[in-house]
Formats: sequence, C-alpha cells, structure tokens
Amino acid sequence: MPPIEVFRTLIPGNFPSLLAITSESEAGPVILTGVLLSLVVIYFASKLGAELSRYLSLPPVLGELIAGVLVGVSAFQLILFPEDGITASNSNLMSVIHLIEPMTDELADLIFKTQSEVISVLAEIGVIILLFEIGLESELRELGKVGYQAAIVACVGVAAPFAAGTLGLIALFHVPAIPAIFAGAALTATSIGITSKVLSELGHLKSREGQIIVGAAVIDDVLGIIVLAVVASLAKTGEVDLMNVLFLIVGATVFLLGAILLGKFFNQAFVSLAQTLKTRGNLVIPAFIFAFFMAFVGNAIHLEAILGAFAAGLVLDETDTRKELDEQVRPIADVLVPIFFVTVGAKVNLGVLNPVVPENREGLIIAGFLIVVAIVGKVISGWSIVGNNEPVNRLAVGVGMIPRGEVGLVFAGIGAASGALSPALQAAIIVMVILTTFIAPPFLQLALKSSEAPEQSLDASN
Amino acid sequence: MPPIEVFRTLIPGNFPSLLAITSESEAGPVILTGVLLSLVVIYFASKLGAELSRYLSLPPVLGELIAGVLVGVSAFQLILFPEDGITASNSNLMSVIHLIEPMTDELADLIFKTQSEVISVLAEIGVIILLFEIGLESELRELGKVGYQAAIVACVGVAAPFAAGTLGLIALFHVPAIPAIFAGAALTATSIGITSKVLSELGHLKSREGQIIVGAAVIDDVLGIIVLAVVASLAKTGEVDLMNVLFLIVGATVFLLGAILLGKFFNQAFVSLAQTLKTRGNLVIPAFIFAFFMAFVGNAIHLEAILGAFAAGLVLDETDTRKELDEQVRPIADVLVPIFFVTVGAKVNLGVLNPVVPENREGLIIAGFLIVVAIVGKVISGWSIVGNNEPVNRLAVGVGMIPRGEVGLVFAGIGAASGALSPALQAAIIVMVILTTFIAPPFLQLALKSSEAPEQSLDASN
Repeated sequence: MPPIEVFRTLIPGNFPSLLAITSESEAGPVILTGVLLSLVVIYFASKLGAELSRYLSLPPVLGELIAGVLVGVSAFQLILFPEDGITASNSNLMSVIHLIEPMTDELADLIFKTQSEVISVLAEIGVIILLFEIGLESELRELGKVGYQAAIVACVGVAAPFAAGTLGLIALFHVPAIPAIFAGAALTATSIGITSKVLSELGHLKSREGQIIVGAAVIDDVLGIIVLAVVASLAKTGEVDLMNVLFLIVGATVFLLGAILLGKFFNQAFVSLAQTLKTRGNLVIPAFIFAFFMAFVGNAIHLEAILGAFAAGLVLDETDTRKELDEQVRPIADVLVPIFFVTVGAKVNLGVLNPVVPENREGLIIAGFLIVVAIVGKVISGWSIVGNNEPVNRLAVGVGMIPRGEVGLVFAGIGAASGALSPALQAAIIVMVILTTFIAPPFLQLALKSSEAPEQSLDASN
Repeated sequence: MPPIEVFRTLIPGNFPSLLAITSESEAGPVILTGVLLSLVVIYFASKLGAELSRYLSLPPVLGELIAGVLVGVSAFQLILFPEDGITASNSNLMSVIHLIEPMTDELADLIFKTQSEVISVLAEIGVIILLFEIGLESELRELGKVGYQAAIVACVGVAAPFAAGTLGLIALFHVPAIPAIFAGAALTATSIGITSKVLSELGHLKSREGQIIVGAAVIDDVLGIIVLAVVASLAKTGEVDLMNVLFLIVGATVFLLGAILLGKFFNQAFVSLAQTLKTRGNLVIPAFIFAFFMAFVGNAIHLEAILGAFAAGLVLDETDTRKELDEQVRPIADVLVPIFFVTVGAKVNLGVLNPVVPENREGLIIAGFLIVVAIVGKVISGWSIVGNNEPVNRLAVGVGMIPRGEVGLVFAGIGAASGALSPALQAAIIVMVILTTFIAPPFLQLALKSSEAPEQSLDASN
C-alpha cells in the first residue's frame, strides 16, 4: 500500500472512522468538504459576475445569474442538483472530492445528494433573508398608500398573460385545454426576489414605482399560488375545488394581514426585549427568530416561506431599532443572498435552447409566442394604475413585473410532474422563464432611467 | 375527504407535486420547514440560555451549551441527530412536521436525516466562522511572541494527561493497553471553540493569558490529530506507522506556516481587491472565499476545517481593512455560532450519568479518575511556562485548556467505532468530556478574576 493510501485509511477527519470512507456514518466530513468547496465556487462566481455586470453598467444580480449558469448544469457542471437524472458522476465538483477522498459510487451519490440539499437550503435561507431585508427597507405605511394600485397591477399582471397565453395556445397552436391552462398559469408568476434585488441595487426600492412593484409582486405571489392550486385541481380531477380555493384565499389573507396587525403589538415587545438582552446578537437573534418563525408558518400552510419573511421585515421596520437591525442584517444578506441567485442560474438548463433537438424546435416556436405574451401581458399592467394624480413611470412598473425567475420554474416543474405538459410545451415554458428572468434586470434599469425623478421618494411626493 | 385533507393533497409548496408527500423528490419544502423550525428552536434556546447564564454572572456560552442539552437528546428531543439508532420517530420536532405534512415513515426518516445533516453543516460553518473571527481578533505578531510558551503549554497539556490517564487505567483499573491508550488520547483534546469563546466573552482574548491559551489550543488541536492517528494505527495493526505520522506532522506544519507566510503576500492583494470591488459584499465575500477555501484545504488534508479558518483570520487580521471586516463578520457570527454550541449540547446524552444502568456505575467510577486526570493534567500545563519575566496567570492558562468539548466526543466516537473500548470505558470518557466542557467556562472566569490586571494587553505589557 503506498503511503498516501495508508494516510487516507488511517487519518480520520472530524467525525471519522478507522477505515476508508465506505459507509453512511462516515460521510459527515466529506459532506462538509463538498459544501465548503461549493461555497467557494459560488462566491467566486457571484462576485466575478456581479462586478463584470456592474462594469458594463448592468444590475449586478444579472451577472450573478449568468455566473450561476456558467458554474451550473449548462456549462462547467460544478454546482449541480440531483434533478432530471443528474448523479454524482455528472458533477465535476464531486470528481474533485473523489480525488481527495476515494469512495464507492453509492456513497458518492449519497454525499452528492446531501451536499446539494444543504446548498439548496442555504439558497432558500438566502432568499428568505433577502425578502426579510426588502421588508425591512420597505415601509408599511408607504406600501399601504400604494396598496390599491399594487393590487390592480397584480390582478391585471396575472389575468392578462393568463388569458392571452391560454387562449393563444389553444387558437394558434391547437394545444389541448389543460396544458394550455398550465402554460397560462406559468405566465402569471413574478419573481419578487429578482425584481426587488434589482430595485434595491438601483436605489429605487423606496420610489413610488419601487413600492408599487414590490407590493404587486407580493400580491402576485399569493395569486400565483391560488392559480396553481386551481390549475392543479383542474388537471387532476377535471373540476375546480371551490372549498380548497377559498381556504387558500382566506389563509393567505389572514396570514399576511394578521402578521401585520399582530406586528403592531409585537413591535413594542420586540424593542423592549432587544433592549433587555445583554449578550451578543441581542438584536439580530430575536429578529431572526421572528423572521424564521414567520417563514416556517408561511411554508407550513403551503404559502411561501419568503412571504412570511417579508411580512416579518415589514413589521420590524416599524420599530426604533430598524436602522441598527438593517446594518446587522446587511452583511448576513451579503453572504447568503448570492447563494440563491447563483443557484437559480445553476439550475437553468440551456439545453432546451438547442435547435438541433426536434422537440426543442417546436418548443422554440411556442416559446416565441409565450415570450411576447409574457412581456406584453406584464408591461400593460403598468397602464392599469388608475386614480393616481401623480406621475408614475408606468413602463418601469410593468417591466418590473416581467421576471418569472424561480417561481416560473416551479410552475413548469409541477406541470411536468403532473404529466399534463408535452415536452415541447414544457421546453417552451422554461425558455420563456429564462428569457424573462434575464432581460428584466437591464430593461428595468433602462425603464427607470427614463423616469424624470429617479430618487423621488413617496414622502417627497406628498 | 375532509377539506383540510383536500387542501393538503392539492396545494403544493415551493417544489411540490399534485399528490401528498410520498416520494423523495417532493421532500424539498418539508426539509426547509424542518430546518426553519429547528433554527427557531435553536435560536430561542441559545438566547434564553445565554441571557440566564449572564444574569447568573456566568459565561453566556455555558448557557448555550446547557440550553442545547435541554432541547437535545437528553431532554425535549427537539434537536436530534441520526446517531446511535435515533430515527425520525424519536424526534418531537419531526412529530410537529408530521402533523403539518402527513407522510410515510420512510420519507419521514429521509427528511429527518437530511434536515439533521443541514443543521450539522450549519453548526460546522458556525464554528468555522467562530475560529475565523477569533483569528481576526488575534494578532499574528503578538501570537508569535507567546508562541514558544504556547507550544510548551500544549505539549505538557497533551503529555501529562495522556501518560497519567493511560498508566493509571492500566495500574488502577486493569484496563488492557489499547483501550487505556485510547482513553489517554481522549484526555489530550482541548476544545478551542469553547475556550476561545469564553475568552472573547470575558474580554480576555488579547490578554497575555488569552493569547497563550489560543495558541496552545491550536497546537493542541494539531497534536491531538497526530495522537489520534498514532492510536488508531496502533489499535488497527498493533504497530505505529511512522511514515504516516511523519506525513501528518509535516502536513500540519506546512499548512499552518505556509498559510501564514503566503498570507503576507495575499494581504496586500486582498486589500487592493476589496478596494477595487464595487458591488455589495466587496469586503466580506472575498474574505469568506479565502476562509472557506482554507477550511476546505484543512478538511481535505484531514486536519480540521477550523484550523484553516483560524489561519485565514490571522492572515486577514494583518490588513488595513481588518476593523471594517471585523464589524461585518460580527453579525454573521452572531447568527451562525449559536447553532454550533446548541448542537454540541444537543448531542450530549446525559443517559450515561444514570447510575441505575450497571455499566454506567463502573463507568462513573472510572470517570471520576479520568476527570481528576483531565483537570490536573491540563492545569499543571500552566506551570510549564518558562523563560517569562512578566507575571502570567498560570492557573487561568491551565484552566483554559480544560474543556474537551466536541474534540473529546470525536475521540470517544472513534474509540467506540474501532471496538477497542468497553461500554463502561466509553461512558467514562463521555462523562469526562461533558464535565470538563461544562465546568471550564465558570472556572476560567473565576481564574481570570483572580488575575491582577484582567484587561492587560500584550501591547501594554511591552
């Protein structure tokens, strides 16, 4: 046995054994090795992408998404997730780990799965923190002022692409009703994460347009979940379960409004608690308990975790400690949020754009149609704002609703799982999601630049 | 079907399907739900423990450890890890998840395992960030000044308890040589995490005593890994593989010194890089890339990840951006480090202290002997400091080396896995680890209070 082999069999890591890694219980330190290497790759890619993007005067988040595509399934295959039959043998990162630590293929798959799941959860915690931060930076009172307009924008932004997409697919492409409705539903989504990040990066989060977009995106998220429930029940039983839909609508309303109303009391308790506590993390830990608890409830009642985190942020924004909390959450967001955006990019499979594959060709034609509907359907929502005497950049509001992001991918995934979608239609939806996600950040920047008063705050306009 | 059941089967979460959760691919959102709930429990317990501990004028970390014991396997069984035959059915947290989300037992076990692994990795990232922060707060130049003394303290603190423990077990308890050597090896460990956290909490990290303890604990960690390798090869083949031991010693030395020497060049590159970058996280992301990369290398070459993170912190401490970086790492540490300490506590099984179990009784008697050796063997290391004309609190240095913490548990675990340890001896080692870990924080506080000049810094003493 060569010395290096002796070395490997004898020297254990953190939670090791006396033998080479062959069983599940010995996988611990190898999983950590994999997670650390993944994080190094993710951080390196995100910073490179963000800086290049900024250098080209584009929103940094676009660079992070593209960097994600580069390290993901479409290119270097470093950051992979066990979907669509991807195994440890596809992952170049796992090949590196394999070199360091000889192991069986079975164990490599277990380590790959667990390590990917850890990165997935870190990404989800990342977007939870992002929405918590967006909530902290938004103002409940100001959001209330644009609430009516945001609701209209959200409803039009859901109804217009859904109707145009579904009817268009049936009329133009002779797609059966159920898959057409599914594709229409996928068109309704708005990625609150991507939109709010771009707004934040451009310093427009607190502008009238920013507040309308964030408000509309939140309402859109709730509407999207309801649409999904309706479509899913249609696909499954052929009819809509009204009880269920009612349950969801009531649940979502009670959750969001309840959180904000209860928050008015919790506010004071939070501030006095934070002032009583004397150990490290006296402010940020109680805030995170609240944010994670709300995210847990949001997830548990089958809404989204990010809605809970956003509500928690909005509530704590009203407190005196807001500025201090904001400062402390900032570096935490800096290290967790990029994991989310790189992961979203890494999961995008550009293979669906390859015109050599026959079903892609059909898919690409349908995708062209879906993309037009996806953009026009959301952009016109900006012109639905009524009863507003102040000038508002309607184009920016509409464009802000364009990115489908991870929400659109979830719709496509559910459609695929239900068996309702043909491969061509599924590919078309994914192409639409990718394109709307990637064009939205630069378009939103352009649209906002055309605004006369970019930094006009709501306070200033009253 | 009652409405709630319809609701459950129809409404999917983030990555859901149209059916109730029955397959692996649908476990995603449930794992997130479990992780969020675990974090809420961990944060709540850690804050409660830390504040109560502080109120009683004890180091907050002691409270976090005890809070961990309360939520862990010994009491409320909320934060469990799949070791020693623990399954999802033992976990009260999984029972809550089960109520929210009906699922098969098989799937519950998968979710339990994955969710526990995520929390384990978060805890390990927590201790990596802790050691990175400790590195940032330590000063390489000052650590160099006490390096000679720290090395002596470490060597005596390893040799004395090892010799006394091994020989004592053979002579007094007629334990065979191999298990006696294993127990002796477990006595050599020092938990750098617990000791440095207490020093930091008491504001003694930069005192002469603090620097000697941190330096000695780092050297002790390396020595411990070497001792473990020797003992493991002894237990396996009956002889020591000198090549292997040499490999480890050279590897550890090259890694630590190489990191610090290379760091002198990297320093300048880091500062100018951070000043060039313009997007969010321009300072903290490059720092984390470096820290995680070093931790990855440390883990990959079978040293410890925390040694790499500590070296990274030491290197970046030398830069101009140190203060700003310190401020940004602080809130990140605040949210990640408590996960580590609560997890250490949660893994402690107080069942070994139950005198009703016969093998525990024998174990408790041996434990009494081991505890005496564990305390005396480390305390006397403080008196090994020579060539020092300045007064140094020798008791504090010795007491600072007492806690075995997670390192001691790893030794016990490896011993158990090798089959060399009898149940009684294994229980005795675990009792010794628990006791030394829990008594060290208050004792260290007492010992430091007896020091005349508690806040005396190295700069002031020169």
